[in-house]
Amino acid sequence: MNELRDVARWGTPAAAVTLSPDVRDLLGAALGVTGPRPAASTVTLPAVTLDETVLEDLRTACPALSTGDDGRLAHAAGKSTEDLLRLRAGQAGDAPDAVARPATQQQVTDLLAVCSRHRVAVVPFGGGTSVVGGLAARRDGFTGVLAVDLAALDRLVHLDPVSRIATFEAGIRAPRAEELLAAEGFTLGHFPQSFEYASLGGFAATRSSGQASSGYGRFDRMVVGLRAATPVGPLDTGRAPESAAGPDLRQLLLGSEGAFGVITEVTVRVRPAPRARDYTGWSFPSFDAGTHAVRALAQDGPLPTVLRLSDETETAINAATGGPQSGGCLAVVGVEGTAEEVAARTAALEHRLPALGGTPLGAAPGEAWREGRFRAPYLRDALLDAGAIAETLETATFWDRLPATYTAVRDALTRTLSGAGTPPLVMCHISHVYDSGASLYFTVAAAQTDDPVAQWRAAKAAAGDAIAASGATITHHHGVGRAHLPWYTREIGDVGVAALRGVKNALDPHGILNPGILLP
Amino acid sequence: MNELRDVARWGTPAAAVTLSPDVRDLLGAALGVTGPRPAASTVTLPAVTLDETVLEDLRTACPALSTGDDGRLAHAAGKSTEDLLRLRAGQAGDAPDAVARPATQQQVTDLLAVCSRHRVAVVPFGGGTSVVGGLAARRDGFTGVLAVDLAALDRLVHLDPVSRIATFEAGIRAPRAEELLAAEGFTLGHFPQSFEYASLGGFAATRSSGQASSGYGRFDRMVVGLRAATPVGPLDTGRAPESAAGPDLRQLLLGSEGAFGVITEVTVRVRPAPRARDYTGWSFPSFDAGTHAVRALAQDGPLPTVLRLSDETETAINAATGGPQSGGCLAVVGVEGTAEEVAARTAALEHRLPALGGTPLGAAPGEAWREGRFRAPYLRDALLDAGAIAETLETATFWDRLPATYTAVRDALTRTLSGAGTPPLVMCHISHVYDSGASLYFTVAAAQTDDPVAQWRAAKAAAGDAIAASGATITHHHGVGRAHLPWYTREIGDVGVAALRGVKNALDPHGILNPGILLP
Repeated sequence: MNELRDVARWGTPAAAVTLSPDVRDLLGAALGVTGPRPAASTVTLPAVTLDETVLEDLRTACPALSTGDDGRLAHAAGKSTEDLLRLRAGQAGDAPDAVARPATQQQVTDLLAVCSRHRVAVVPFGGGTSVVGGLAARRDGFTGVLAVDLAALDRLVHLDPVSRIATFEAGIRAPRAEELLAAEGFTLGHFPQSFEYASLGGFAATRSSGQASSGYGRFDRMVVGLRAATPVGPLDTGRAPESAAGPDLRQLLLGSEGAFGVITEVTVRVRPAPRARDYTGWSFPSFDAGTHAVRALAQDGPLPTVLRLSDETETAINAATGGPQSGGCLAVVGVEGTAEEVAARTAALEHRLPALGGTPLGAAPGEAWREGRFRAPYLRDALLDAGAIAETLETATFWDRLPATYTAVRDALTRTLSGAGTPPLVMCHISHVYDSGASLYFTVAAAQTDDPVAQWRAAKAAAGDAIAASGATITHHHGVGRAHLPWYTREIGDVGVAALRGVKNALDPHGILNPGILLP
Repeated sequence: MNELRDVARWGTPAAAVTLSPDVRDLLGAALGVTGPRPAASTVTLPAVTLDETVLEDLRTACPALSTGDDGRLAHAAGKSTEDLLRLRAGQAGDAPDAVARPATQQQVTDLLAVCSRHRVAVVPFGGGTSVVGGLAARRDGFTGVLAVDLAALDRLVHLDPVSRIATFEAGIRAPRAEELLAAEGFTLGHFPQSFEYASLGGFAATRSSGQASSGYGRFDRMVVGLRAATPVGPLDTGRAPESAAGPDLRQLLLGSEGAFGVITEVTVRVRPAPRARDYTGWSFPSFDAGTHAVRALAQDGPLPTVLRLSDETETAINAATGGPQSGGCLAVVGVEGTAEEVAARTAALEHRLPALGGTPLGAAPGEAWREGRFRAPYLRDALLDAGAIAETLETATFWDRLPATYTAVRDALTRTLSGAGTPPLVMCHISHVYDSGASLYFTVAAAQTDDPVAQWRAAKAAAGDAIAASGATITHHHGVGRAHLPWYTREIGDVGVAALRGVKNALDPHGILNPGILLP
């Protein structure tokens, strides 16, 4: 009874990608993809389990409350491939009973009070771009599920140009925040792939990391203050850039994924908007050689604003589908800032990279990446339409463990998917570097089996086991949600879980906040 | 019955400072200091309240256990002026009943089990340099107090030169850690004033920040992993430089001040040892002008390794006691790195600082500061001997609030101490800068009244109120301990306290870890 077209895919239909004949040939020849997989045309939502008394109390707390099918469906899932596959199959079992759109922070507080009283599970909803099941709260033990969509909390509350900090309401979308900052000559500089739809509160709740993290830092490093509504009252953090006054409570909300409170305000440091940029491609003879080079830049500089290194497979696939003709491995090196800074840093990079084994490929590959950098989720939709499965996963580890982690994860994905009769393409890149280590981001494509959800789950589990066994973290920038929970609890151990559970019990005594997310 | 000489002062007698006639004149003329205040020659320790059964269990857990007077006195207090004044008056009421010196991390765990069973309060003891009463655990409700001195846990466990990370046992002193790293060509780069005596575990537990924080970062930014023993088991954090897997649990231990666990291992990122340095002095016409200049460097670069700006009073006192003759405000600008880096950064600074109103004073003031940078605590001892009171306090805030915070704190200190009939010298400097704000570090000297502890407490309380009222944090790098507790709990609010209490209850169900410290 609901139109699935917009919900079971990314972004706006206007930006949909059509696969080129080259890519279609590749899918058939390399992966054995046999043909299109039409989605179900409708989905039936589960019945609303909240009774009228509760709904009336919710409405009193927040007049913008809806139990309509469209709203429920739009909040039924995130944007993982599994989410999309289930929606395409007409399954929307995680849909909330109702959607509230609070207009003020006070309404958020009031909603939490009602939900605590009636034992309603609360799913804080920002841009809805989670790829780890972060919006699929546990339903058992609750009278129902309420999505609290923060989209109306979208104001720039305060800009302090002297301290270069800006306070936003948490529901504001990243492009709108950038627009408001640009009017004052500033930028936040946070550009994850979800940029066009994600919210600042969502970035905070999931410890997001953007594509320009080398230059602008991770989102958690941008945050100087956070305000959250919790069932026991407001938590207001950030009196100074840094403090020695106890554990940094900002870091308790960053990554809390709605389980400790609903983030309602985010204060971030901002930077002068860049006036110049220089994005170029570089080629390295191998992933090993390129890894050595990006490590050298991370440890001894000069560090560009954007630094990415594709492995041989990703480079080859990129080349086969219209990217630059380059053997070895492609690196994208982007520099932003004032014209003077860009000139100086670019010159320093052009001096250093050849000494590290790099061959310059000019501006075209750099600009091509920059222009296409938010397009991958659209490509995924087209691949799913065509009968392929496409998904990503990522991790981070220290430099000395990086090669072993890379090999272990790639092997696990290849082995599992090949074992299911669907030899995959497994591509990888490094996109976030630190002095002590880096992230690894894997993209997988394979022909869909009859049960693509089970197919991917098996591969994902094998990759998670390989990540854990290699000593790396289960996620560098996608969050925990439900998808990573088993590996996450192993990663932080019983005492880590106990510590977080202690916080949860203290701030959310009725356990209504995103139950089943982050904590078991 | 105990020799107080070494306990009631800083460091080693060999490095003791003698006040010059100039300074003695200044004390008399400017502050009305009338003459020396001899310390009590002995102190009587409180009786040991732990019975033999408990001591026997503790000895089984950790054979290196002592109830001797010397050891108890050496662990009776930290190094705040109040601590020293009380010891000088023969008061050592916070002395522990016994001191354990575990030789292994397992012994720490075993000690916690015994203490949980017998309800013994545990004070983790690193270098003993706390200036906020962080070693004065609450005694009521406990059978006694055990100091757990981590000095024997002093190994370099692992150095990974590829990832540039090093794992140390937590009790290692900073100079020894630097020595071990230097042998491999690395440095940690953490040089707080307590450097010569403090331990790496202590740096972590108190969110320490060093004098070279502009270049090397705060200690919490150096940490990539931590291991702690807690009464419910080990907490092991840090699988990667950064992660999106939930809240950063490292940040829960950083600043935990022994209240959540005993930090037993610290993994830090290290850097190549600098091969060159350039420390110079710069003069600015006023603190306002200098503040504007250091903000410009923090926000737009180039940022030196060390950046400090004294206000007019500190500059004048420095000049009157042998420092460089400089009107206005003195800034110390230090650059370290490879010869090439130092040359480039120095040149950039020499280009930019004059444009920001700075006048170069040459190398002498810079080198003088560098050579004397660990000497202030010795000077304090000499001032206390001479009948003056001398103490420091510090805060941090955002740039736009900095001038108001500076004025409010200075006025509060001046007003309170003048009101007690002891017009003080109140000096201040900025020593840690961030893009969004900076620290303010105040040094106060005044003639002692008959009750110098009460005299300072009143001044400190007024300063704390002024800091809180101005919206700044109660401490940028000294920690909370007992001294800052009332302002700290106001700063983080009821919900912040509840969150930390939740962690405390989960990890330390019997509440034995540093009771009264960090949390009420």
